Amino acid sequence: MPKLVDHNKRKEQIAEATWRTILKKGMEGATVRNIAKEAGLSLGSLRHYFSTQDELLVFAMNLVEERVTDRINKIATQDIPLKEKILKILLEIVPTNQETMAEMEVWFAFTFHMRHRNNKLKDHDDKILLGMKNIVNYLHESRLLIDHLDKDTEAERLYALVDGLALHAMLEPERVNQQRVLTVLESHLHSICTDELRE
Amino acid sequence: MPKLVDHNKRKEQIAEATWRTILKKGMEGATVRNIAKEAGLSLGSLRHYFSTQDELLVFAMNLVEERVTDRINKIATQDIPLKEKILKILLEIVPTNQETMAEMEVWFAFTFHMRHRNNKLKDHDDKILLGMKNIVNYLHESRLLIDHLDKDTEAERLYALVDGLALHAMLEPERVNQQRVLTVLESHLHSICTDELRE
Repeated sequence: MPKLVDHNKRKEQIAEATWRTILKKGMEGATVRNIAKEAGLSLGSLRHYFSTQDELLVFAMNLVEERVTDRINKIATQDIPLKEKILKILLEIVPTNQETMAEMEVWFAFTFHMRHRNNKLKDHDDKILLGMKNIVNYLHESRLLIDHLDKDTEAERLYALVDGLALHAMLEPERVNQQRVLTVLESHLHSICTDELRE
Repeated sequence: MPKLVDHNKRKEQIAEATWRTILKKGMEGATVRNIAKEAGLSLGSLRHYFSTQDELLVFAMNLVEERVTDRINKIATQDIPLKEKILKILLEIVPTNQETMAEMEVWFAFTFHMRHRNNKLKDHDDKILLGMKNIVNYLHESRLLIDHLDKDTEAERLYALVDGLALHAMLEPERVNQQRVLTVLESHLHSICTDELRE
């Protein structure tokens, strides 16, 4: 079905043009007209793929999520020490390079934009919270989580820490750089895990 | 100087109208025209107090910061147990009631709006980071902070945790309610402090 493949590929290209437009002009500038221009399409062709701005934005946002999830799944299957693996996964969420920084910016702009619309979306954050729960559960099952800690509270704490760092890395990239993010995440991991994790 | 007092009072009323407008219509709707309408003023009278939209937004934002700082300073002088005092201060930053929720929403909308403007502002977050440093230093000086912890890293970690919780409380107020925020903050404090703090 080469036709369908082309159709999906074109939709992805439009999504990428949407990200670039949001990065350049903010959410206020992410009009269908500006996005069509950025994608090198006529307004009519763009409407062939997405009939409304919201439909386009939701697609663009889901694609961000999909790509992040793909990267994380790839890391999860790598044959590397557990601590390194967890830190690498968390660094996919906290933006410390140009690609993840752009994703985060788009995600935030989009989330705030959607708050003032009636048609609220399914919560995009759920997958990250789920990921944090998985990490905490995994640490617990591997007997690495300190005994008296409550798994549910720890997942919430890790989730808040990661998103807070993500926010600060985006707003103050020079101060909250990759080294600093890593230091905080590592010290957090050490504080909730037994000494075995360090080995 | 009754004239000056009136002038300042009127500016504060316009700032409050600005917050209400941002809450109702988002940043895109926070035009000078809409704000004047919300404040019950003509466009001309509003321009008498603020000549540009940015000038008005910066004033409105500084007023948010001032009010939060006032509330925190009041708590700091209260004669209550240290742990209760720290939790109360942190709860002024993480929004768990209507007033603080509105402040947070305005703060986020404003921060993102300003990112796409040329005239960047002085960093509004600095005061909160400073507050977190003060809390960590105070715990250290009171010999309550666990010995091997690095003060600088702990301030950054607390800052990220608090802003992450604030973000989640705003986006998912039902799940991340006051009780949940309190549980996470309390468990964090316990994890960085000696048992003496619990007493």
